[in-house]
Order: sequence, then C-alpha cells, then structure tokens
Amino acid sequence: MIRALMAPSELAQRLLAGDRRALARGISLVSDDEPAGLRLLAEVYPHTGSAAVVGVTGPPGAGKSTLIGALTARRRAAGRRVGVLSIDPTSPFTGGAVLGDRIRLSEHFLDRGVFIRSMATRGALGGLADAALQATLLIDAAGHQDIYLETVGVGQAEVDVVAHADTVVLVLVPGSGDSVQALKAGVMEIPDVVVVNKAAQGPAAAMVREIRGVLALAPASAPEVVVLETDALAGTGIAELEDALEAQRRRIEADGTLLERRRRNLRNEVLAIAGARWRRALEARLEGDARFDSLLDEVVARRLDPAAAARALESG
Amino acid sequence: MIRALMAPSELAQRLLAGDRRALARGISLVSDDEPAGLRLLAEVYPHTGSAAVVGVTGPPGAGKSTLIGALTARRRAAGRRVGVLSIDPTSPFTGGAVLGDRIRLSEHFLDRGVFIRSMATRGALGGLADAALQATLLIDAAGHQDIYLETVGVGQAEVDVVAHADTVVLVLVPGSGDSVQALKAGVMEIPDVVVVNKAAQGPAAAMVREIRGVLALAPASAPEVVVLETDALAGTGIAELEDALEAQRRRIEADGTLLERRRRNLRNEVLAIAGARWRRALEARLEGDARFDSLLDEVVARRLDPAAAARALESG
Repeated sequence: MIRALMAPSELAQRLLAGDRRALARGISLVSDDEPAGLRLLAEVYPHTGSAAVVGVTGPPGAGKSTLIGALTARRRAAGRRVGVLSIDPTSPFTGGAVLGDRIRLSEHFLDRGVFIRSMATRGALGGLADAALQATLLIDAAGHQDIYLETVGVGQAEVDVVAHADTVVLVLVPGSGDSVQALKAGVMEIPDVVVVNKAAQGPAAAMVREIRGVLALAPASAPEVVVLETDALAGTGIAELEDALEAQRRRIEADGTLLERRRRNLRNEVLAIAGARWRRALEARLEGDARFDSLLDEVVARRLDPAAAARALESG
Repeated sequence: MIRALMAPSELAQRLLAGDRRALARGISLVSDDEPAGLRLLAEVYPHTGSAAVVGVTGPPGAGKSTLIGALTARRRAAGRRVGVLSIDPTSPFTGGAVLGDRIRLSEHFLDRGVFIRSMATRGALGGLADAALQATLLIDAAGHQDIYLETVGVGQAEVDVVAHADTVVLVLVPGSGDSVQALKAGVMEIPDVVVVNKAAQGPAAAMVREIRGVLALAPASAPEVVVLETDALAGTGIAELEDALEAQRRRIEADGTLLERRRRNLRNEVLAIAGARWRRALEARLEGDARFDSLLDEVVARRLDPAAAARALESG
C-alpha cells in the first residue's frame, strides 16, 4: 500500500504518455528479469486491460509477419495504435530468420502509431512466456489498442506464449499435412482462428476442407473455430480476417471467455512471480550453507538421490 | 532412510539388469513427470555415474544424427554399450524432421547393445532439461557406457539440455557464418569440441580456421576447445573425433572438471525437484482458497498488480 502513495516514477509517466523509448526500456527491464521491471509494471498496471491481444503462431515460413503487417495497415487506417511483439526463444543459430521476419514489417517502422519489438530472453526466472505477458502489459499501458504477439520458430515455448493472448490465430500453409495431423491429435486445440495463408501457392481450398473436417470432430461444447484463406502478400482475405477477429473479440467479451482467460493468465503470472521469489530466497539461504554442501556431496557420491536431497531441504 | 531398507521394485531390478522395455518404461515415467519416475530414479541412483555422457548440439541439418551413428558404430566395435537420447522440445510442426533423424540411426535399431530413444515432454514441472537428466541417469543405470544426448531443433532449451552432459560437442556445417558470429559473441561458450561436418560440401578448412581464430580470443584460463573436420556420411574424421572425445574425457576426469560439472548439474536437479514440490504444495494450498480468489479478483480488476499479489501469497 506504500507504493500507492508514491508518485509514479518518471519512466512510468513517460511510458503511460506513449513515449516509445520509455516503452522499449521497460520491455528490456522485464526481459532481463530486472526488479525495476516488476516495479514499473506495478506502477502502470492499473492502466492496462483495454488492448485486444492477438497471438499469432504457426510453422516458420507460413507468412505470420506478412499477415501481421497487412492487419496492422488496416488497423492503422481505422485509427488504432498497434503494437507488435515478436517472441524469439530460439538460439543464435536462427538469427537470420528473425531478421528476415522483421524486414517484412519494415513498412511500419517509421509509423509512430506502430510499436515493433523482438524479444528473446535467456534464463528469465519466470520464463519467456512470463516475460512476454509482462511486455504485453507494458505495450498496453503505453496506449496500443491492438497488440500482435507473434512467435518466431516453433516449440512448446511458443504455445505457452500465445496462450497469454486474448485470441489465438494459427497460420498454416497449404500442403503442410503434418500440421493438420497435429490438429487432429488435439495438441493444437488453442486456436480461435485458423488461417491457411498463401492461397495462390497450393491447394488451399482442399486444406481448408481438411481442417474443417478435423474441427467437426470436436465436441459440440467446444467453441467455434473460424477457418479462413488468405494471401497476405497479395492482400487477399485480410479484411475477412480482420472481421473474424473483431467478431471473435465481441463474442469472448460477451460470453465471459475473455475474463476467464485473463483470470487464468494472471493467476499463472502471480504463481510464476511467487515461484521466482521462492527460488531466489532458497538460493540465498543455501549460499555458503555447509549442510547443503554435505547433502550435495552425498548426491554426487550417489549415496543420496536428488529427490531425497530435495525433501531434506524442506526440513532445513 | 526407509527407502534403503525396501527391496528394489521389479521395474528397478529389470532396468538394472539391462532390460530395454523396463528402461523405456522408466523414461516414459520421468518424461511424464510421474511420481513413480522419481521413485525409480531413487532406487537405481546408486548404480549411476559411470557412463560417459556426450551432448551433441548444433543447427538442424548439420548431421548430428549421422555423426552419432558413426560414433556408435565405433564404440560398439570397441565392445561398449551405447545409449542415444534425442531431445525434441519442438512442436508438432517439425515432426517430420525428427523422424528423418531417427532414420539416420536405423542401422543400429536391431543392435541389442544400442538403446535409442526420442523424448519430448510437454509441461514437465522441472522442464525438459530436467527430464533429460533423469532419463540419462536411467540409461546409465541400465548399463550403457557411452550416452549421446542429442538435441533436435534449436533453442535455449537445447543449450540447457546439453549443459547436463559431461562433454559437449557443437556440430556446424561449412558456410554457417551465423554460427561463427554467435561463437564470437560468447553465447556458444559451452562446447568442448567443435566439429565442422560434411567436409566435402563446402570450405570446411576456411571455417575451421575462422573458428580457431575466434577461440584464440578466449582468455588463457579458458579450457582448450578442440576443432575438427568430419564427413560423417563418408566416415571421414570419425576416428579422430572419437580420440578427441576420449582425450577430453581423461582430461576432465583428471583435473576435477568432470566432478565439478556433475556437482553443478546435480545441484540444479535437486533445486528443480524442490521447486516442483513447492509449486505442487502451493497449488494444493490455493485450491478453493477464497482469499486467493479475492486476491485474483483484485488483479483481474487491475487494482492489485501481479507482483503485489505474489507477495501477499507469502504472508498467507
């Protein structure tokens, strides 16, 4: 409660006023897991919650960035401020791919109403998904009304990231039969909208039919998933995608799904912060603790198994 | 201490006798984060620690599996039992790539002295790196003397996985300039051996020189990194790689590095298990806790920030 009585920091004031450098600085603080990042978030948090956060995921080369670029152009034309956060949990090996993606968004680089940022964190205590949620809240607080949370690369980490969005778009390309198989297996249950992009390149209509067939197997209680065809480079299907996203947004606002998702995500965020605090406190307690050192000696000598050592820590 | 008085379970006995099905079952238990997995690990743990664990990482297409296949053939010829654990933290999108990798190891599928297993975990509490360490201990307990821990795909998750190995091999292909740049930036500081594979395909000699140039910038106190050229498909350079790995092994055994690495890895394992136990206990405590529900209501309403809610949990 002391915090509420304090004047907001200069960084928070500048961020809330929409200052891009302050926002960039804030995102660096949360991705570097700096305590100042959480303090900043606490200051601006009351001003969050109004942005529509759309997560965009899919295999590399599906055209996610081009699609976001096309959507951004439409949202700007409608007078909305846009934020794009690209999440890259991949190693240095794929540095080139990320750069290529950024170039596809370059037409928006000079637009002051569009904030574009890539984020890759190494070893953040709460993990990448957690840092992505915090960065999204900062972009929201800075007044961006539409936020695209894009994943670069593939993996469980990305799925965790887009789970923080209000709406999830899965982008596929025609002929990626693996992805449809995965959809069938139920592991890709999270999308609200499935886009088959680059309609000119392959048998998109057949793939749309195949995806609809798979989705028809879902239980009747499952929320409806919209399936669309686009060609982001040519600009085909973008207006329909924008409409579908707005309709989906109205639906989840009206039926309580949005509130439920945000509650679940914020619960995870609270637990992640609590876990990080606990881990820090434990590390501090064990630093130079002779009893822990002898426990470890026993584990290294294979006389005590790691789980037993973990239990012994609790009684300490 | 009660555990020490108990007779080992049948699964543990079979695993220790080298039964492949028992080992496969054990790995499933640890990758699914089943409590039975940790119990099994506790039973067989005294019989671990003698295997040489080699982590093999590098960008997709560098020929990691082919290289492991070639090394496996040599180790088998020397009468050693081999285990290969391929870690795949990637999403269903890349299922095809993993299958292709497995095919490259197929010549060893029928050899009873070689155990090959892919592992992909979703949401294991301790994370993938943790599950990989546990699986490696089980493969070790089952009597495999050389264990190759291979990462499929790229990312921080893989770096965390190979950090659990005794020795780390980084496999690159000629012309992958990005990787050399990354080496320069110091982010790839973990390898003991760097292999430039597919020597016939590109300017390998130039790349080896470039890598040596970068490594020469390391402080004099840094351990020596061996740089080699191979062509795994043609079998060139494999004997030299095997020799380099054995020499490196002898060096880290003699100078205490091995013990130090294992101690660090086991420390992380103990803390990961302790963290998972803490998280489970917290979830159980919060289940149906009305006070936590009202805290969350405040967070959702943006009246309380997530970090403040996390602090409030501690005083609960």
